[in-house]
Amino acid sequence: MRFLLTNDDGIYARGLAALYQELSKDAECIVVAPEVEQSAVGHAITIFRPLMVRKARKNGSFLGYAVAGTPADCVKIGICELAGGPVDLVVSGINRGANVGINVLYSGTVSAATEAAIQRVPSIAVSLDTHQEADFTAATRFARRIAAFVLRHPQPPVALNVNVPAIPEAEIKGIAVVKQGHARLMENFDRRIDPRENIYYWLAGETELPACEDEDTDACALKRGMITITPICFDLTRYDLLDSLKSGIKDHFPRL
Amino acid sequence: MRFLLTNDDGIYARGLAALYQELSKDAECIVVAPEVEQSAVGHAITIFRPLMVRKARKNGSFLGYAVAGTPADCVKIGICELAGGPVDLVVSGINRGANVGINVLYSGTVSAATEAAIQRVPSIAVSLDTHQEADFTAATRFARRIAAFVLRHPQPPVALNVNVPAIPEAEIKGIAVVKQGHARLMENFDRRIDPRENIYYWLAGETELPACEDEDTDACALKRGMITITPICFDLTRYDLLDSLKSGIKDHFPRL
Repeated sequence: MRFLLTNDDGIYARGLAALYQELSKDAECIVVAPEVEQSAVGHAITIFRPLMVRKARKNGSFLGYAVAGTPADCVKIGICELAGGPVDLVVSGINRGANVGINVLYSGTVSAATEAAIQRVPSIAVSLDTHQEADFTAATRFARRIAAFVLRHPQPPVALNVNVPAIPEAEIKGIAVVKQGHARLMENFDRRIDPRENIYYWLAGETELPACEDEDTDACALKRGMITITPICFDLTRYDLLDSLKSGIKDHFPRL
Repeated sequence: MRFLLTNDDGIYARGLAALYQELSKDAECIVVAPEVEQSAVGHAITIFRPLMVRKARKNGSFLGYAVAGTPADCVKIGICELAGGPVDLVVSGINRGANVGINVLYSGTVSAATEAAIQRVPSIAVSLDTHQEADFTAATRFARRIAAFVLRHPQPPVALNVNVPAIPEAEIKGIAVVKQGHARLMENFDRRIDPRENIYYWLAGETELPACEDEDTDACALKRGMITITPICFDLTRYDLLDSLKSGIKDHFPRL
């Protein structure tokens, strides 16, 4: 078995090291990760400059390939060039901070997994719901178990977005297979003036708290102490709107 | 009416100027666009540094706000801060080069439209299927007509991905409302050594040509000389897999 590991927090992140340690029990793990942190880069790829690639070491031993690019770049070049053979599974994480709701679209962690599915390799993105100093034990242990699940259930390669609550393993309430919610950041922009009188803005704001009474979404299940799993698509068509749009367009543009 | 115009080719791009000229016939158009080209940045946003914002001028007159960020940044700050009032429609483009198939995920042009829909503002991304010196006439004229269509059909705000073939307007075969195809770049990486003996790679490869005999996708309809329209989602859940995944997980993890 050969796993490709990546993340968006960068190759020296603790969450990636913890993931490597746990998954190495089952497979040869090749790390191909961004040289520097790439949070919120979404599904960006690098096309107008080359990717510098370097063998990264820690305490003298080979850690993996550091790529001066995005998480999606790492998955592309990892699968095509650096892994040294067919990749059975891509695992992205462990991310510091949940990736639920609208934030899934901005997430480099999740986009790495989506890129793997595009490349016909099954994948898992794993995020831990804390920005504090994190204990990755429960998340890495679950990553190993869900990896085994994915490999035993051959299916069209799909990306799974997994979020783990930051509570002791024994207190986790269960696993919820749920849809992505629509909770989002309610933005405001903090306007400032720099010492040379240029205007700049910081993105600020609070994430909308979803009303969870009857919502069966990633954000709500995670809040209830569940591990959440959401299968993620790379076909962005709104199929539910195709028919009404077809007839609307036909009426509006009768001559085209 | 107030429209927000953006793109991913940068504020001085010809396609944006052509769009401004045409849409200004119907609405006040506020341009908020990237300071520099942002192709393939997908849905990246800027969270760890501030956004520099500058009033850009051309031949002495105000052109719009140049933002040192991504297309999605431009839409966020445009709607929240710079537009000076409620925005009725966001139009992104005219992009040089089609945005069809898997490339939709990497597209800054389309992600700007998606971000608008997240912000509950209807939106259109318009791309012209050429990388050569382009004639934007047909694309801008269609942008104006589809804008009128969107504004006359109130619905939940949705992002429409529009692609226009690069042929004379009279030769366009019609309008096709179609799903996103799955054609993608078949990557290879071109390995090189820099003058200081560091390794680097250029992303290369050919885009897979879809077999279009019975395919009703964006890429195929565009190839047939049609203008294509695809409604784009920001809920990435693969609903078709939720039930089978639920039962698979339940069987595999009986105790969770």
